[in-house]
Amino acid sequence: MSYYTRFIRPGGQCIRLGGYRRKSPSPKFGTRQDFENGIRELKGLFPGDLSSTSNEELETHGFSGTDYHPGALHSIIVYPQSTEDVVKIVKVATKYRIPVIPYSAATSLEGQTRGHPTVGGICVDISHMDKILEIHADDGDLVCQAGAGWMDINETLKEKGIPLFFPIDPAPTATIGGMLSTGCSGTNAVRYGTARGEWILNATVVLPSGEVIKTRQRARKSSTGFDTTKLFIGAEGTLGIITEVTIKLTPVLPTTVAVVHFPDVHKATEAVIEVLNKGVGIQCVELMDDQMMSATNKYGQASRKWPEKDTIYFKFQGPTKASLAETAKIAKSVVEKYGGTGFTLAKDDKEAAELWTDRKNALYAGLAMYPGAKAWSTDVCVPLTKLPDLVYQTKRDLEEIGIPYNVLGHVGDGNFHTGLFFKTEEEKEIVRQATHRMVKRAIALDGTCTGEHGVGIGKKKYLVEELGEGTVQLMKSLKRTIDPLGLFNPGKLYPDETDDEVEGKV
Amino acid sequence: MSYYTRFIRPGGQCIRLGGYRRKSPSPKFGTRQDFENGIRELKGLFPGDLSSTSNEELETHGFSGTDYHPGALHSIIVYPQSTEDVVKIVKVATKYRIPVIPYSAATSLEGQTRGHPTVGGICVDISHMDKILEIHADDGDLVCQAGAGWMDINETLKEKGIPLFFPIDPAPTATIGGMLSTGCSGTNAVRYGTARGEWILNATVVLPSGEVIKTRQRARKSSTGFDTTKLFIGAEGTLGIITEVTIKLTPVLPTTVAVVHFPDVHKATEAVIEVLNKGVGIQCVELMDDQMMSATNKYGQASRKWPEKDTIYFKFQGPTKASLAETAKIAKSVVEKYGGTGFTLAKDDKEAAELWTDRKNALYAGLAMYPGAKAWSTDVCVPLTKLPDLVYQTKRDLEEIGIPYNVLGHVGDGNFHTGLFFKTEEEKEIVRQATHRMVKRAIALDGTCTGEHGVGIGKKKYLVEELGEGTVQLMKSLKRTIDPLGLFNPGKLYPDETDDEVEGKV
Repeated sequence: MSYYTRFIRPGGQCIRLGGYRRKSPSPKFGTRQDFENGIRELKGLFPGDLSSTSNEELETHGFSGTDYHPGALHSIIVYPQSTEDVVKIVKVATKYRIPVIPYSAATSLEGQTRGHPTVGGICVDISHMDKILEIHADDGDLVCQAGAGWMDINETLKEKGIPLFFPIDPAPTATIGGMLSTGCSGTNAVRYGTARGEWILNATVVLPSGEVIKTRQRARKSSTGFDTTKLFIGAEGTLGIITEVTIKLTPVLPTTVAVVHFPDVHKATEAVIEVLNKGVGIQCVELMDDQMMSATNKYGQASRKWPEKDTIYFKFQGPTKASLAETAKIAKSVVEKYGGTGFTLAKDDKEAAELWTDRKNALYAGLAMYPGAKAWSTDVCVPLTKLPDLVYQTKRDLEEIGIPYNVLGHVGDGNFHTGLFFKTEEEKEIVRQATHRMVKRAIALDGTCTGEHGVGIGKKKYLVEELGEGTVQLMKSLKRTIDPLGLFNPGKLYPDETDDEVEGKV
Repeated sequence: MSYYTRFIRPGGQCIRLGGYRRKSPSPKFGTRQDFENGIRELKGLFPGDLSSTSNEELETHGFSGTDYHPGALHSIIVYPQSTEDVVKIVKVATKYRIPVIPYSAATSLEGQTRGHPTVGGICVDISHMDKILEIHADDGDLVCQAGAGWMDINETLKEKGIPLFFPIDPAPTATIGGMLSTGCSGTNAVRYGTARGEWILNATVVLPSGEVIKTRQRARKSSTGFDTTKLFIGAEGTLGIITEVTIKLTPVLPTTVAVVHFPDVHKATEAVIEVLNKGVGIQCVELMDDQMMSATNKYGQASRKWPEKDTIYFKFQGPTKASLAETAKIAKSVVEKYGGTGFTLAKDDKEAAELWTDRKNALYAGLAMYPGAKAWSTDVCVPLTKLPDLVYQTKRDLEEIGIPYNVLGHVGDGNFHTGLFFKTEEEKEIVRQATHRMVKRAIALDGTCTGEHGVGIGKKKYLVEELGEGTVQLMKSLKRTIDPLGLFNPGKLYPDETDDEVEGKV
């Protein structure tokens, strides 16, 4: 048993917590009695299904099936329905000094939504806060609660016949609040940028003080000082809980898909840079390596078989069929200069969808290659011209240690994802170390330990190396100013004294 | 004579300082002796032309010919050449408690670069820090010092045959450091966004502590926590001095220009929204009102005469001539649905340049209408559909009070500029009050007191009304954390107790 909460899986198996349990809890949190009082108070405020301490829900929220960082249970799950509900939760948390961990779709890959490893905490699950509040079609924006999913939003717009969409496309079930908190992006980033750009017009945030702020009004542009919205983008819930957001929308345009194969990643990257510099309508430009193409041939949903070579999937976009055809023609002539072969352009929308299906299902095809295996997914990002070196060195490394892997890249951004496959605990350790070396390599190439998955507990040990001690100290000092009690998602994002221990394991 | 510094114009005329001089100086600054010691030390560190206390330079830096906020002299102007030089200045400032005011092209319109009204301060003029340090053409980025001008950068790229440019286009002489500090934008924002977007990959900043941080590495994307770069964008030098920046570049594309006239701003805005939603290549979409067209006919550089109606100038962009033609065709058919007449498309690049000249010189044509008059330029920004109301109400107001004016708008962003013309002090006061009412109107329409000019001393009294007390308090608390001595551009951006007094005058 841990200090304040239970680390027992249903069935009684005790979960080991990566060494964190050996540390005594920080004195900043309340006592066991405080926690019990707080939980009782929350159950009163959020009766019935609006809160839970059931083993099953604690388990679902405290562990993840998609990453392999240590799990840690929360003390209670609370389901607010409004900003006012979140304020109530924050007030209880502050009164009893209980950590507060925001939670939505839990698609994050770096352990961002875990409970605090020694004391648990209040998991604020915003999945009931999924309403679209206002649609301003002619202004090209929309106001929603933070638990609304980006795909649901786009589906709603489509159903209403509004030809606009929100273009940031991480995991299909991701919510706006989680997307902001992660500073996420996806395949559309090469055209539309990321959650850090200008897609978020304002956010309503419950601060650790319990105060509610709205960061801006709804104008598309403003130069009224530094934009406090940006402070919460990528903060992983450590500075407050985002409850409502105004997002900017963009027109839905016709698209088509083309696939082309290259001798190597170097040639593919050079070709992509030149295509992008032509200024043609590129919505996505995705690299799938030879391993990934092999998996797709064996386990992809599409019937077509491809050469097992490093391959680029383009999604072209344009206002008209004519502009799509022009883009395809320009792209074809460029890629062929760089040794691109077998340029396949979808004949119609149906074929475009089929071609893209292989890209979308790459993760599952990759997994199917290694029955019974799990995939450690991670990402890094480097300047465009550094990508071939990074991919080459990483692949050589992985081949030397004999771990099955595949490579996916948002190559127009220099953003590179790997899936590393393992079955045993021993292999998992080898995979963890290979990931560590990949990150070190990316940082040495003027890149980042994470292009779009965030920091959580998995990447925080790299922040000082990447950003410098001064930048990290600045982040920490702002955190202390906004959250002086240190209750908001403690142990995530900012490196701390426990990281030497974690680092020692790598 | 003021407390520590001289408010005497060359020639001996004493400058009145809008009431600020009646306040005793804040005790947080050093004594007169401290200031003298600090200035002496700076002169030793920056000998000869590298610093100045000449009347002429103090006058140039402490006043502005383009805005009508109170002027205030600095105590000394220092010209650093490197980040290390800026650190030296900050150390002297901290040692002697002297304000530090960064200064570059001084194109700002809200008094951002004035000296402190009661004590002056150290004006850090970064105009010698104008070097391009690295060009990474294939990565699509460039590293420069903060004093580099955006037009110089683009000229250099052109001379080197690199077909890329930096697309944020405020005043022609603006520098990268000033642009970041203002959170600026320009005519290209409808296509490329603003300085708040993803064009700034990292910044090197000298913090008030004297510490130098670099906010990020050079990857295009990163999700390592909240992005501290964004903290300095729009901070107007109140949180540190930006010394080096990595900016993202984008391909230079063929463009052309079209002009079309509308019955009113309402129809023009509706047409623009529909054109934008077609997803065609629009680089700029600029409104010039009937008054502005009248001024252009009388004093524009182009020989052509136009109907004196509310007019839209489009700059189309596309990868090829064919795509430009397609865009023009689509735009023409849309605008005609909304009563657009006289659609004039440039036949060639020469004619496109000539058409655009009228838009570029609008300010000067407007001024020429009222010989001997000065123009009070300001901007606000609202959601797109609110723009016609704002323009209509503002024009009615201006006509009622009988002040000559014209209207320019970055209409694709809802960003609206006015030039209000005055000759006498009495008229200036009327203009100030009209500007005040325009701002109030914009805020009431879910907009902002400034779309791209920043806050400075001119707009800070509106921040609480626009952003809410909580957001402003958050900004102030971060300011106190980063600049506990309050030395960095004091009196700018954040509303303070003097604003009631200013407000009382409006």
